[in-house]
Amino acid sequence: MLTDRLRNEFIALLGEDRVYTDPDTLALYASDETPKSCTPEAVLFPAGHDHVAGIVRIAAREKLPITPRGAGSGNVGGALPTRGSLVVSFECMNHILEFDPDNRLMVVEPGVVTDDIDDLAATAGLMYAPDPGSGAYSRIGGNLAMNAAGPRTVKYGSTRDHVLGLRAVTGDGREIRAGSRTTKYATGYDLTRLLIGSEGTLALITEATLKLIPAPRQIASLRVCYASTRSACEAVIRAMRQPIVPYALEFMDSRSIEAVREFGMAEGLPSGTQAILMAEVEGDREDIPRYLAALETALRGDGLLEVQSGFSKEEITHLWTARKSLSHAVKKLAPLKINEDVVVPVGKLAELVAAIDDMGRRYNVPVVAFGHAGNGNLHVNIMVHPDDAEEMTRARDCRLELIETVLKLSGSLSGEHGIGSEKRAFVALEFDPTTLELMRDLKKLFDPHGILNPGKKLPD
Amino acid sequence: MLTDRLRNEFIALLGEDRVYTDPDTLALYASDETPKSCTPEAVLFPAGHDHVAGIVRIAAREKLPITPRGAGSGNVGGALPTRGSLVVSFECMNHILEFDPDNRLMVVEPGVVTDDIDDLAATAGLMYAPDPGSGAYSRIGGNLAMNAAGPRTVKYGSTRDHVLGLRAVTGDGREIRAGSRTTKYATGYDLTRLLIGSEGTLALITEATLKLIPAPRQIASLRVCYASTRSACEAVIRAMRQPIVPYALEFMDSRSIEAVREFGMAEGLPSGTQAILMAEVEGDREDIPRYLAALETALRGDGLLEVQSGFSKEEITHLWTARKSLSHAVKKLAPLKINEDVVVPVGKLAELVAAIDDMGRRYNVPVVAFGHAGNGNLHVNIMVHPDDAEEMTRARDCRLELIETVLKLSGSLSGEHGIGSEKRAFVALEFDPTTLELMRDLKKLFDPHGILNPGKKLPD
Repeated sequence: MLTDRLRNEFIALLGEDRVYTDPDTLALYASDETPKSCTPEAVLFPAGHDHVAGIVRIAAREKLPITPRGAGSGNVGGALPTRGSLVVSFECMNHILEFDPDNRLMVVEPGVVTDDIDDLAATAGLMYAPDPGSGAYSRIGGNLAMNAAGPRTVKYGSTRDHVLGLRAVTGDGREIRAGSRTTKYATGYDLTRLLIGSEGTLALITEATLKLIPAPRQIASLRVCYASTRSACEAVIRAMRQPIVPYALEFMDSRSIEAVREFGMAEGLPSGTQAILMAEVEGDREDIPRYLAALETALRGDGLLEVQSGFSKEEITHLWTARKSLSHAVKKLAPLKINEDVVVPVGKLAELVAAIDDMGRRYNVPVVAFGHAGNGNLHVNIMVHPDDAEEMTRARDCRLELIETVLKLSGSLSGEHGIGSEKRAFVALEFDPTTLELMRDLKKLFDPHGILNPGKKLPD
Repeated sequence: MLTDRLRNEFIALLGEDRVYTDPDTLALYASDETPKSCTPEAVLFPAGHDHVAGIVRIAAREKLPITPRGAGSGNVGGALPTRGSLVVSFECMNHILEFDPDNRLMVVEPGVVTDDIDDLAATAGLMYAPDPGSGAYSRIGGNLAMNAAGPRTVKYGSTRDHVLGLRAVTGDGREIRAGSRTTKYATGYDLTRLLIGSEGTLALITEATLKLIPAPRQIASLRVCYASTRSACEAVIRAMRQPIVPYALEFMDSRSIEAVREFGMAEGLPSGTQAILMAEVEGDREDIPRYLAALETALRGDGLLEVQSGFSKEEITHLWTARKSLSHAVKKLAPLKINEDVVVPVGKLAELVAAIDDMGRRYNVPVVAFGHAGNGNLHVNIMVHPDDAEEMTRARDCRLELIETVLKLSGSLSGEHGIGSEKRAFVALEFDPTTLELMRDLKKLFDPHGILNPGKKLPD
């Protein structure tokens, strides 16, 4: 509980304008992109590392739970407050502290908007590679917490692959500095990557040194339509085995295409299209035709209906219409989506998609699957009416079968969204008890009082 | 101490032919590539995961130190036995358990020779990217322990970037499974990367799932000679900022070139050459001229003396003559090399090389610097006569100043060789006490009895 004494202590630390306990602010910070909410005790807006360290020290002393928060754009409840928690919002720690093009790095506070990093890098011909769909508003701290990824991950890897070092505060208020400013490092234990993807449960990141790489030169797109999902999945394997690594390789299943048709955005798709792959290449202007041809050769095969290519910005935008309208189209199917973010080895994608199809039929719920096929990462949306109890039961059973199927296919619960509060019940299905116990021990080591984002990542 | 009772217990576990205590074998396993040695109590050759788990459980019960060992090809004492330790050699766990080209992965035991992995991958048009100089004989377990790297790291990253998952045994005999078989993963804490580079001090790795990528198509080389090291270092920055990421970008300083000249292998180098960059590109045959031109444009500038390019295998071999003869040439300078493996941000390379030059003069010892310039990673060899006590003192002072200089330039103690026993005295110079304390806590968590590779990685 936040007593007046404690509230005053936070005000003394941060200043009056950084400690909010009014009902409007509390309501605003009670939820993230999940449909749930829980009102926090207070919302704190630290201005820098020392503020964060001070907050954690007070919270540790008082055993007050902290819910760290970036933009609140996550969809697994990672930033969802727990009962009695203080929300620590990093929105005001939004400074790019250093941009060093010669060393291809940028030092940022956790509240910087993801796309701002890439935009600044681009001014020097560089790129921050991870490109989550939420990049226009998500904060880099949330990306770090969840190990965010995006279409470019198929070529360049996820957030974890683009961070050189971190400054952070553990749950007992210790300041640590992990990693380095160099692109090679064999000195200490790799605390950097341990913290990335730990969802704010081990330490609060207050500074990150990000790795930049040369920006792409020219991009071109292919839209490839198939008569069956199996044909599309087999094409993915072929595309990932040839030397021109795609810049993006995205998949839409038959139910996705149906949703887009119903939404009126499927103009120009050949009839009989049951699956679509969107593929991109990047390179010098003179590379592009050859790269596209190589990718097209790999993507051609049994079940192919049509290949369309786009070179100009307009053509590319046109080709991506169906894919980009998907999230709006899906919302028309039912008021609520149960959004799974499963990942399997690329070679198992066809089996997974067939199983999803079958589950949708058996449980009689619309299941829409699309996503980052080149990484075997699908977003599987089970579309439901939350006030239809019987349908909700079927949807929950379907969800459990989906997860069991993914694990049987050597896959994992999450490719890029993380676990948060919403998926942790399933974590024990993926890990053996010993590994899970070790993860819990790690949590205790970094956060002995259990105050950092409790109720997230690991099951109780 | 290995009592008869314990020896018999190990024989009961492993079989007679896997437990060695004879003086010849003990002598053979008493040292690695460092000039030191320490005779172990026994050498054990487990045949699989269960053997390793059994060994660790006995050792934990008896508080017997374990020195894990691959090929013993490391040069920082990572595999050097400590007093009373059991060497656990992974040489017999040398099976490739699975090669799955569709999912671009290979599952290997730790005793597999590094190059065998890449060779098998190549049969399916794939590549295991990390290419340590010792790849022809080093074992992958040692590569994992040290986060090994090589010339290709400038384009593809180090060992840590090419492992999907691990099976391992902690110091209290717990079996853990880290990571997954997928190229994206946001489920558990990243135990995989925490274990990679931990030098066998946290857990013994018994299986690794390695990530494969498409193999390079065609390779071409540039040898670029400069009139000053500063000019070469400035060219490195330019090369790393343009879009064609080199496949290799290696550096030789003036003292290296002198050593090669003295060794008679500098034929064809223009007079006045004070620094050389070896650069490579890879791509389709039709890409190569354009890629080389782009790289050459970046490498041209103030102080350039000559650019030579090589396309055929013979031409490439010829261009690399000076670089490849370097390690033999250096050995002629003095009987012992104190080999540092420092790394700085690329933009600081010129400052580092100038400081090294200056140190060599002031301490009056030959200091030869070369290495992976594209990552800012230099191998700095201080050449000494071990029985010249006065020279050894100068060399040690020079070494300390080198390390202090590297840290002042925001660098790190090791880019790819690791810390082992030989560099751990300097670790506390790089880390703040709190971060070091947390690393020690981590060590205790994974290895509560302190039996796994004691005396390595972290300072006492």
